Amino acid sequence: MRKKIDKFDLQIIKLLSKNARLNYRQLAEYLNTTRQRVSRRLERLEREGIIKKYTIIPDFDRLGYIYVILGITLTPGTSLDEQIEILKNDEDVKVIERAIGAHNLVVHLLVPKDMKEVEKKITEITGRLKNVEKVDITFITEVVKFELV
Amino acid sequence: MRKKIDKFDLQIIKLLSKNARLNYRQLAEYLNTTRQRVSRRLERLEREGIIKKYTIIPDFDRLGYIYVILGITLTPGTSLDEQIEILKNDEDVKVIERAIGAHNLVVHLLVPKDMKEVEKKITEITGRLKNVEKVDITFITEVVKFELV
Repeated sequence: MRKKIDKFDLQIIKLLSKNARLNYRQLAEYLNTTRQRVSRRLERLEREGIIKKYTIIPDFDRLGYIYVILGITLTPGTSLDEQIEILKNDEDVKVIERAIGAHNLVVHLLVPKDMKEVEKKITEITGRLKNVEKVDITFITEVVKFELV
Repeated sequence: MRKKIDKFDLQIIKLLSKNARLNYRQLAEYLNTTRQRVSRRLERLEREGIIKKYTIIPDFDRLGYIYVILGITLTPGTSLDEQIEILKNDEDVKVIERAIGAHNLVVHLLVPKDMKEVEKKITEITGRLKNVEKVDITFITEVVKFELV
């Protein structure tokens, strides 16, 4: 049985979502508790996949990339698993999200700054998928806010 | 003048995007260099905003949230800055991205698991914005891959 998430878990998660580099000592200070208690809890959150990943948000523009989001709508009844399998190991595909609603699949690409390359990559990726009904292409020009949780 | 990003910068960024909690010693080991060199470089990447944030990707579902993405299209000519100002301090608005293409604004919401709440929140947010032409609502059911950079 999976344990419930409690207030202490949420506090740790909120602090790390603001700064994933806080160490046990700093977290313990913020939360007015011991390093041991923080480390035990954090290990559980990682083990159970409640914290899926520690990562960075870079300035894509400065890194020389164009950041493209494809909102993909598939024909009703199409297997999502199969489409995800097709894209999963593509190095340019940075984020894949399963979804319902306007789009069934949200795919984030980072492509070197060259619009011909961007066109080629989008055509190539959407060409590999089956039963694509519609693709909404959005170019991110700036991440203004990023405060998950 | 802003310095160019070199190979060493990119190596640090790639490692941290896979695991933002790597410390100077671990980064130095991976990159076969000194802690001093890593720390100097990392400080520069942070100072110049090339690394914008260290954060976590949590399991939203386990945390009890519904993760909604609004792809918002505004009437041509609408000031994006003004719309961003309206949303920036909303606690439920977790991510705001400026964009061009299918959508002009991509907004991520985390709403407690209650579809009535979700409806209320989406109506409230889109109602506050000016000149909304279209809103694509997508519910993320799983983040399958997240490997920025």
